Amino acid sequence: MNSVNGQPSTVNGPPTHPFGFAVEHTDGFSRAGRLALPHGEVLTPAFMPVGTHGAVRGLHPEEVERAGAQIILSNTYHLHLRPGEATIHALGGLHRFSTWNRPMLTDSGGFQVFSLAGLRTISEEGVEFTSHIDGSVRTLTPESSMEIQWALGADITMAFDHVVPGQASPELAEEGMERTLRWLDRCKVRHAQLGDGADPADRADVRQTLWPIIQGGIHDELRRRSLEGTLERGPWSGLAIGGLSVGEPKPVMHRILESLAERLPPDRPRYLMGVGFPEDLIAGIARGVDLFDCVAATRNGRHGSAWTTTGRVNIRKAVHRTADQPLDPGCDCATCARFSRGYLRHLFVAEEMLGLRLVSLHNVRFLVRMGEQAREAIRQGNFDRWSREWLRRYWGREEP
Amino acid sequence: MNSVNGQPSTVNGPPTHPFGFAVEHTDGFSRAGRLALPHGEVLTPAFMPVGTHGAVRGLHPEEVERAGAQIILSNTYHLHLRPGEATIHALGGLHRFSTWNRPMLTDSGGFQVFSLAGLRTISEEGVEFTSHIDGSVRTLTPESSMEIQWALGADITMAFDHVVPGQASPELAEEGMERTLRWLDRCKVRHAQLGDGADPADRADVRQTLWPIIQGGIHDELRRRSLEGTLERGPWSGLAIGGLSVGEPKPVMHRILESLAERLPPDRPRYLMGVGFPEDLIAGIARGVDLFDCVAATRNGRHGSAWTTTGRVNIRKAVHRTADQPLDPGCDCATCARFSRGYLRHLFVAEEMLGLRLVSLHNVRFLVRMGEQAREAIRQGNFDRWSREWLRRYWGREEP
Repeated sequence: MNSVNGQPSTVNGPPTHPFGFAVEHTDGFSRAGRLALPHGEVLTPAFMPVGTHGAVRGLHPEEVERAGAQIILSNTYHLHLRPGEATIHALGGLHRFSTWNRPMLTDSGGFQVFSLAGLRTISEEGVEFTSHIDGSVRTLTPESSMEIQWALGADITMAFDHVVPGQASPELAEEGMERTLRWLDRCKVRHAQLGDGADPADRADVRQTLWPIIQGGIHDELRRRSLEGTLERGPWSGLAIGGLSVGEPKPVMHRILESLAERLPPDRPRYLMGVGFPEDLIAGIARGVDLFDCVAATRNGRHGSAWTTTGRVNIRKAVHRTADQPLDPGCDCATCARFSRGYLRHLFVAEEMLGLRLVSLHNVRFLVRMGEQAREAIRQGNFDRWSREWLRRYWGREEP
Repeated sequence: MNSVNGQPSTVNGPPTHPFGFAVEHTDGFSRAGRLALPHGEVLTPAFMPVGTHGAVRGLHPEEVERAGAQIILSNTYHLHLRPGEATIHALGGLHRFSTWNRPMLTDSGGFQVFSLAGLRTISEEGVEFTSHIDGSVRTLTPESSMEIQWALGADITMAFDHVVPGQASPELAEEGMERTLRWLDRCKVRHAQLGDGADPADRADVRQTLWPIIQGGIHDELRRRSLEGTLERGPWSGLAIGGLSVGEPKPVMHRILESLAERLPPDRPRYLMGVGFPEDLIAGIARGVDLFDCVAATRNGRHGSAWTTTGRVNIRKAVHRTADQPLDPGCDCATCARFSRGYLRHLFVAEEMLGLRLVSLHNVRFLVRMGEQAREAIRQGNFDRWSREWLRRYWGREEP
């Protein structure tokens, strides 16, 4: 990551229309950008907290906003099953339903249904699956995914893709990649139809863009073909990289990102799906990624595992029993401003749910703030130094 | 409740020292008062939310404060077991530990250990019980209850009392009442010793008053003797009425309250323990009660059961699926200001913990606001009319 990638390092003007993106600064491959969306602007790099059930687990939308989150991700699969997109649409769409008034992205449901091993059948038409809630048999197709996401009404909707495991063979990875391209054609057609819908009132309410997903597993050639096929079907207001952080070794993920970084259109936002942990954010930003999402912030938080500027802390450990200091003295979140480790540990030991919430909030703020800090470092032209120092402090030694 | 009870209806000056109480207005038996405590003033009548584990279940102290709670109750039994009063004392006492900076009251642990049927042995010395957490055998005595509460450091500490079931025989009720008086002597001695403690730094930090508890079951004569015996051991800065709302019929509780209302010192605050539901608050205030506590607000909230100005609502019911209106259009809480019934129902159905929190918060605000409204009605001299109208709206008909 020592080369400069030839992207413009000059400052573009701010994006003037929804879905416009301006790269304001570059530093190596890393980029500081500005993405305009119907519900507001997103300064990148940025972490998107995940709101599985129309709420970031355990957190109030006001808390998520105060933590600095500019955009959240919501899950199409879960919301389709409960309460159903018709219910959400009847209550004014997902923004109004959940009272989250900032930008939002919905995934396609693809990742979830492909994860239902043994409970789903894949065909060219789509995926037939068994609901994990009531056992009902349902089908998700490129078209129905677009329809569900349209009813939900997020700013950014994701194409329905064929996801393969991280260590998939070239044959399986190729099959998934090719199908993802064919499905992208269908997604594009259906999404355009919805946008040209007969109900002008609906159309005015729901302004939404569609982003494609690059697949191809861990195979450079397949990734390259996926990107080319995707760009042929463009233009797109943004592109996502899927099928990473699903079991492959980290150096492999880094190699794929580096290969794509040189080929992705420099003037479009890049979203690395399902990533990540703090070190993954830094690795991704260093390789030109602008957007991230991951459930780890809240999932780890619910188990008492916190990221801090000096490494991970398990707040349940007895060593914190009478600890008066905050979870992370270097953190500016509402939890660290107010509560001691001793109190947080007590809440977890006593199974008081306030504890889950306080550590989840800390973790969300932690990743959001990393995006803010990385952005500032990029603007200052010292991302490399900043990230090295950040990781040294985090690991308590050189990066392993 | 048609008679006027002869208490002064003139306005006293504000209390000038901690633990001072001024009755500012009376209307029938009902009173609008002002209680000075080391951590602030409490305008009565007032509901105290319960913070079992040093947190009002599921709620952030900032939320509880914004809901208007002036004082909370914390449980000595639970905090003694987890994390232990030594841990809390080491972290600066319960106020600092929990970051609740307003007034606080701790119960004595008596109610909890007496509820451990089959797991506790009562003697004149105290109660030997088996921890519900780790099965360890422990003892709670009047002295140790005072010591634990001193270490916790609440503004108001409660005497360790012998609680009997709601329908206890006169013999058992008399035994409990007499023992409660003997234990009160021991509580008073130990509490005074702690207040005269050798460590002046401790003493400056922990300013705390002791309130006795009137027992005697459902027997007017025993209640009268309990009150007389208690007053002989005074003076007290406040008095509590225990052993009600523990299974006896409501009219019996009302009769006991009426009988006590005429005998309790008019210039001291009166706390009805473990009560109540909305209708119980009104019944208690009408009979001269100033303070209440109950876990129902948060316990019901966690099960999706909400009080509203027009009756109870079970938010889990399918009828709320696409309901766009707030839980209670007549409520000013943060939940009702922002979220629809449809969204709240979804959170409960999807088992998203934000739902538990939002309905708990509503219920807490609901009871706190009842106290505020009752106070205003008393000050206007129309408590009787206000409470009748309130109950008519709540029940949707005349009070049953």
